[in-house]
Amino acid sequence: MKKKISPSMMCSGVLEIGTYLSAFEKNGIEYLHIDVMDGEFVPNLMLGTDYVKSLRKASDIPLDVHLMIYNPENKIDWFDFQPGEYVAVHAESTAHVQRALQKINATGAKAMLALNPATPISALDYVIDDIKAVLVMTVNPGFAGQKLIPQTLQKITDVRRYLDDKGRYDVEIEVDGNVSFENARKMSAAGGDIFVAGTSSFFNKNIDLDLGIQKLREAIELR
Amino acid sequence: MKKKISPSMMCSGVLEIGTYLSAFEKNGIEYLHIDVMDGEFVPNLMLGTDYVKSLRKASDIPLDVHLMIYNPENKIDWFDFQPGEYVAVHAESTAHVQRALQKINATGAKAMLALNPATPISALDYVIDDIKAVLVMTVNPGFAGQKLIPQTLQKITDVRRYLDDKGRYDVEIEVDGNVSFENARKMSAAGGDIFVAGTSSFFNKNIDLDLGIQKLREAIELR
Amino acid sequence: MKKKISPSMMCSGVLEIGTYLSAFEKNGIEYLHIDVMDGEFVPNLMLGTDYVKSLRKASDIPLDVHLMIYNPENKIDWFDFQPGEYVAVHAESTAHVQRALQKINATGAKAMLALNPATPISALDYVIDDIKAVLVMTVNPGFAGQKLIPQTLQKITDVRRYLDDKGRYDVEIEVDGNVSFENARKMSAAGGDIFVAGTSSFFNKNIDLDLGIQKLREAIELR
Amino acid sequence: MKKKISPSMMCSGVLEIGTYLSAFEKNGIEYLHIDVMDGEFVPNLMLGTDYVKSLRKASDIPLDVHLMIYNPENKIDWFDFQPGEYVAVHAESTAHVQRALQKINATGAKAMLALNPATPISALDYVIDDIKAVLVMTVNPGFAGQKLIPQTLQKITDVRRYLDDKGRYDVEIEVDGNVSFENARKMSAAGGDIFVAGTSSFFNKNIDLDLGIQKLREAIELR
Amino acid sequence: MKKKISPSMMCSGVLEIGTYLSAFEKNGIEYLHIDVMDGEFVPNLMLGTDYVKSLRKASDIPLDVHLMIYNPENKIDWFDFQPGEYVAVHAESTAHVQRALQKINATGAKAMLALNPATPISALDYVIDDIKAVLVMTVNPGFAGQKLIPQTLQKITDVRRYLDDKGRYDVEIEVDGNVSFENARKMSAAGGDIFVAGTSSFFNKNIDLDLGIQKLREAIELR
Amino acid sequence: MKKKISPSMMCSGVLEIGTYLSAFEKNGIEYLHIDVMDGEFVPNLMLGTDYVKSLRKASDIPLDVHLMIYNPENKIDWFDFQPGEYVAVHAESTAHVQRALQKINATGAKAMLALNPATPISALDYVIDDIKAVLVMTVNPGFAGQKLIPQTLQKITDVRRYLDDKGRYDVEIEVDGNVSFENARKMSAAGGDIFVAGTSSFFNKNIDLDLGIQKLREAIELR
Repeated sequence: MKKKISPSMMCSGVLEIGTYLSAFEKNGIEYLHIDVMDGEFVPNLMLGTDYVKSLRKASDIPLDVHLMIYNPENKIDWFDFQPGEYVAVHAESTAHVQRALQKINATGAKAMLALNPATPISALDYVIDDIKAVLVMTVNPGFAGQKLIPQTLQKITDVRRYLDDKGRYDVEIEVDGNVSFENARKMSAAGGDIFVAGTSSFFNKNIDLDLGIQKLREAIELR
Repeated sequence: MKKKISPSMMCSGVLEIGTYLSAFEKNGIEYLHIDVMDGEFVPNLMLGTDYVKSLRKASDIPLDVHLMIYNPENKIDWFDFQPGEYVAVHAESTAHVQRALQKINATGAKAMLALNPATPISALDYVIDDIKAVLVMTVNPGFAGQKLIPQTLQKITDVRRYLDDKGRYDVEIEVDGNVSFENARKMSAAGGDIFVAGTSSFFNKNIDLDLGIQKLREAIELR
Repeated sequence: MKKKISPSMMCSGVLEIGTYLSAFEKNGIEYLHIDVMDGEFVPNLMLGTDYVKSLRKASDIPLDVHLMIYNPENKIDWFDFQPGEYVAVHAESTAHVQRALQKINATGAKAMLALNPATPISALDYVIDDIKAVLVMTVNPGFAGQKLIPQTLQKITDVRRYLDDKGRYDVEIEVDGNVSFENARKMSAAGGDIFVAGTSSFFNKNIDLDLGIQKLREAIELR
Repeated sequence: MKKKISPSMMCSGVLEIGTYLSAFEKNGIEYLHIDVMDGEFVPNLMLGTDYVKSLRKASDIPLDVHLMIYNPENKIDWFDFQPGEYVAVHAESTAHVQRALQKINATGAKAMLALNPATPISALDYVIDDIKAVLVMTVNPGFAGQKLIPQTLQKITDVRRYLDDKGRYDVEIEVDGNVSFENARKMSAAGGDIFVAGTSSFFNKNIDLDLGIQKLREAIELR
Repeated sequence: MKKKISPSMMCSGVLEIGTYLSAFEKNGIEYLHIDVMDGEFVPNLMLGTDYVKSLRKASDIPLDVHLMIYNPENKIDWFDFQPGEYVAVHAESTAHVQRALQKINATGAKAMLALNPATPISALDYVIDDIKAVLVMTVNPGFAGQKLIPQTLQKITDVRRYLDDKGRYDVEIEVDGNVSFENARKMSAAGGDIFVAGTSSFFNKNIDLDLGIQKLREAIELR
Repeated sequence: MKKKISPSMMCSGVLEIGTYLSAFEKNGIEYLHIDVMDGEFVPNLMLGTDYVKSLRKASDIPLDVHLMIYNPENKIDWFDFQPGEYVAVHAESTAHVQRALQKINATGAKAMLALNPATPISALDYVIDDIKAVLVMTVNPGFAGQKLIPQTLQKITDVRRYLDDKGRYDVEIEVDGNVSFENARKMSAAGGDIFVAGTSSFFNKNIDLDLGIQKLREAIELR
């Protein structure tokens, strides 16, 4: 599958969103990653429904919404999700994972299942038909700036093999957490398809944005 | 006290924030109101820590952060609050209201106590020394676009009288919920000092922003 | 106001409901009281949405639904409430009491505020315009067969006086908990209007149902 | 094992229970399925302790109680469960699944483990000695009238194989969710033993009850 | 009423308990204060059931157990409370305060209602007949070593007056939080009866224990 | 690996701790087991931060702290854990197991993962690099005096084999629950390394402490 980039919009200052969106469109960025945090499932509060609705109008790049919230199945319809968008819910965030995925799919959006670093792959066993992607967390969700948890690289490989064994070559793997240029290469080699870009790569004052995107592109395309 | 305006920043599209901030600075807007919602205390998810930190850098207008979240006392230090900012916590959101206010004051920011429409005024009895303002909700928190709950006008009056009876003429009353031009006049007459401006007043395509601000100013100044 | 009886339907065996409904209709019973318990707000599980919907079809007597559940504002629309029905929510069950009452009123049903034995009357201060009745619990909710908590008799008197002082002679007081024939007389004298009848009065093998209803009627009418 | 039927009593109107019970007894129905919902674990409120106790007296058919509630281990003793009854708790509803099963077994009733559609079979690994049945949910719990989730048919097969591999031929599989006549045949072929009958089969005005039961019987016996 | 001292046993090291108990008995200490914290109602974990049971055997001084836990009504019977002991529950810790007090009284122990610094006195309105004491928190519960919240001195006075107005001269006031020698004097003058002694008074390496107790005794007896 | 004993300190009366510690030091006891219970994750309240800090000073034997609490990742830093100490968190107590383990390791202490009787071994799949031990519960946590759950013996064997298959011969297995002299032998044979000693072994008036320790030592060393 084509390797893709999904920049984490929480890394953009409120005044720089327009600049970022232009650069993202020019550089063929595939998704806009939005971190929604409720301060309960994760120890941080971040973005939400109006931000999603507004960003949707501000750009043609499809959204990739990462719900780090409890009981997402009860909150799916607050966002007015659209066909072509990705919506990820955490396996650990509800007793009713399939219902959450089902509700996402019912909106026309594409359901993704997010796995915390400690979560076993067996979480996929009976929802694989309901998802278009798996989000492998390579840090614990909640903050930018954390260090890669080493065994999650192996987990990407394991998830890819699991999916291939079931003939689900079409299910993508998104990777989120410390996606630096160096790590991105390993993550891509391990089987990642979509890479959440944050402060570890091009959301960073020390690098030119266009160059940064290009550099990440090269890393994930394993050139 | 001088009547003040605090525009609800969640009403601004992500690309229009710069335009709004310029207009707000030009028009002497006193506060920037930020609605933080956790999807549990209120049935909506909105904004959060990075937004607060970024907006703080984007403008010199002091922030007025409205925490609609459970157990705010445990989350105060996520925001890096600053002297001159207002931070409101809900009386109904924790068993430890005084601790939450105390933690806000310890950051140098000014603590405000928010009261849901049904909450009795006795909630103020033993925290009046810890606050610089009371936030009287005139709708139930969570959404823009709701209709004024009639008895909350009387509540503004009651809170003002309560504060005056205690000699606390300096404690301000903020009013949040359906602050239309018409309602604003009544809310101001009732005793409101700070007015949260949203879609009911100048966050509205049908009105010129500068004129809208001026019109709200006139309403609250009871001209 | 006319004194009324609201038999607690949870006291009827599953096979006796038809018999009870006939007797209730024949004897001019005013309401059918339905106790909905979630096992979290109260330590018992009882009845629910389908029971309410089915009972509504089975009788012309209007329902009087007592929600002993957390966050009732999120669950009001599960019941399809109808005009003429009473729906009570507990002041202690949500941070958003006014929203719950507002949602009940929006269905056309009549909102009632329930007060646990320890709850101060100030809970009524800013919702009195949203309700048609106050439910004074005279035992702690959750079980049949408990003993009257003595000070709740005084509380009925206090609530009646509170309502009268505000000119709300039309707001009814419902009394729930150990409504025996003897207690009913005192509760009625104290100001009760609607009496929840359970195992303490005519849901009792030792008494003829018609006679029991008549006896309770006489007690509450203070004959 | 003999194939069995367990009609979902929540599908009976309050006045029709007697009629249903007579028909069930006449037709050799094996269990009476009771759905207990707390409005928190599932988004619905349904039945409870008194209903269970009353139904137990109303019929000789053993009960099959499905607890869709949080922390069932703390609530088992509210129901006074009896030998011969089935009691199912959800693997996702508590951190202490074995304690819940242990408590059920201590009453003399037979413990069943319920699995939501997404729950992996590994949930059975260390409780297989504590159960007499597995409840495979073929829809997400909470409502009648939902559509079969396709992969749950495979899950029935997987659970059957898992049990057989451990030599536990005696552990039954109950199937709950959209058990229509057509689906029942497939579910039975996949390995189901007990079938929860609801609106998809004979709780339906368009079909004669006796004929409906007979038709379901034929479907599950694979005739 | 006689002024009394209740040393906070959490301030004793595990090896010094015997020494402390001897000194307390010699000095006529009236109660042993035990802080039970659940890490949820307060941000600390402290002591519990076995400690209470063991301390009860280790000394003839009656216990004074302060439950800083959620839903204490469900946990009262874990402690095997005894006649002569005080047991305090927080008004903010449950929707069913009266049930919690009732359960304490049913054990033969004496119920006390604890009020957080922000809690209005109206919390007492309908439970005054169920209690033998009010615990006025003069810091927010959870930690030793905090500073007195100034307005809580006034609150002691207000509670005393409230109780006297109702003719309940017999209901004691316990004071907990920063009971230093200096503060104790003011707290006693304000109307306190029982004083929780911790690190602010004689649990302190810089003072001789007997002298410390004597000094605190003098302070509260207003000599 | 050397077989070790970790006595459960909650079994010591408050006045006997010194005696126990002396005996434990004399007999080369390897760890002091401390049960911390929050009354929510488990139905009991036990010990806490000050106890841990005090015991740490009272003995040179390293602590082995068993956190039976919800969301331990938010509470790790309350305890001031030290290098050489074991700290166990439950796989079922948080959605963020890896974060909890990571935080323990960051203090210098050694992280252990606790598994309730029903928890599948797959919980270890992606945290095995973060732990130094697995705590296999052989009863459901919360109380002393329960009976061994038979299948947990097999679970010890399974965990040992799982660890060995991954080459993690260094990861220890701690066993907690009904570690009697007879059971200890079987648990040790099954692969246990550290044994939590409670009322089933030498915390028992009917046995001499030194002899009891020696007897347990012999049992686990399989002599």
